[in-house]
Amino acid sequence: MSSESTAEIMAATGRALCEHGYADLTMQRIADESSVTSAAIHYHFDTKEELLNAFLDDLLDRFESRLACEARDPRDRLTDFLDAVFEESSSDHDDFPVALMELKAQAPYHDLFRERFVELDEVVCDVVGTAVRDGIEDGHFDDADPDEVARLVATMINGAHVRSVALGERTDRTRETIEGTLALHLGWTPGSEVAA
Amino acid sequence: MSSESTAEIMAATGRALCEHGYADLTMQRIADESSVTSAAIHYHFDTKEELLNAFLDDLLDRFESRLACEARDPRDRLTDFLDAVFEESSSDHDDFPVALMELKAQAPYHDLFRERFVELDEVVCDVVGTAVRDGIEDGHFDDADPDEVARLVATMINGAHVRSVALGERTDRTRETIEGTLALHLGWTPGSEVAA
Repeated sequence: MSSESTAEIMAATGRALCEHGYADLTMQRIADESSVTSAAIHYHFDTKEELLNAFLDDLLDRFESRLACEARDPRDRLTDFLDAVFEESSSDHDDFPVALMELKAQAPYHDLFRERFVELDEVVCDVVGTAVRDGIEDGHFDDADPDEVARLVATMINGAHVRSVALGERTDRTRETIEGTLALHLGWTPGSEVAA
Repeated sequence: MSSESTAEIMAATGRALCEHGYADLTMQRIADESSVTSAAIHYHFDTKEELLNAFLDDLLDRFESRLACEARDPRDRLTDFLDAVFEESSSDHDDFPVALMELKAQAPYHDLFRERFVELDEVVCDVVGTAVRDGIEDGHFDDADPDEVARLVATMINGAHVRSVALGERTDRTRETIEGTLALHLGWTPGSEVAA
């Protein structure tokens, strides 16, 4: 399958998931959202689980490449990371956070989904933990446990996701709370000017 | 309907929800889990939404009465609150956090569910915010914004819930992170000895 077709199937999967929800998602409904036939989708993905696993993998790849950047000031890295997380969640289809929440609720029944979510969490903790560690070494941040700060941020991001879906709260509100607590842990406020 | 029947229907709803999930939950399946007929359930609850709304209401009531306690040392109140949240989530049926996550994912489509989750969040923020405010006034805690600390804790609890479902992580792990960040915000570690 060409990478264009794969990209098209992934995009169609996202739209169909938002529109019909996990329980009512079918290969046919995904095909209906794209120019690829359901037979072609079936040819590459035996089951809905495999297809959704590829979908989560694709999401993870895009998130990682968005974060990949040359070694720079760790303060900029943390700010960029928060931008990537919080812009991502507001720019997608309105229903996307709901669809993703449904997949998280399915994780106990699908090892492949759980593996993808664990992987995503590791990426988040690694990016934040490394930036915090580097920032402490460079003398930009107060002394703190980088892994605990990373876990705090990762958990707050998980919380922001639930709050947007269950309470209808804007995720920006949680970003402010994360920034406030990072200021206390690191003695530095995300987004504040970094002298070149 | 007697309060015994109501209690029985609520318990049966919880079991049926854990067993079948939201999409496959029916009045008949709830009746199968109890000695009440599906006709009797239908008589009191017109729709699955109404029944689940009553179920969430009941959950909220039990959580609130668990937290209701005489005015005491705000440090004990915070510790008791964390006990209530984290014991609750580990003592229930294993699948209960998954079932609750599914209901949260349904909140965008059911105003009644959303209202219950907003109410629950207000209870959490009120209990934590009041304890923090009192503790600062009494000189037990460092100065902090009580509402921001409450929001931080509420968001971390939301995050603990997702992490237990999506990642299979023990919620105790998030409790430790909450305690570490409260220590930094308040200059006091939850669970530490309070002199009488």
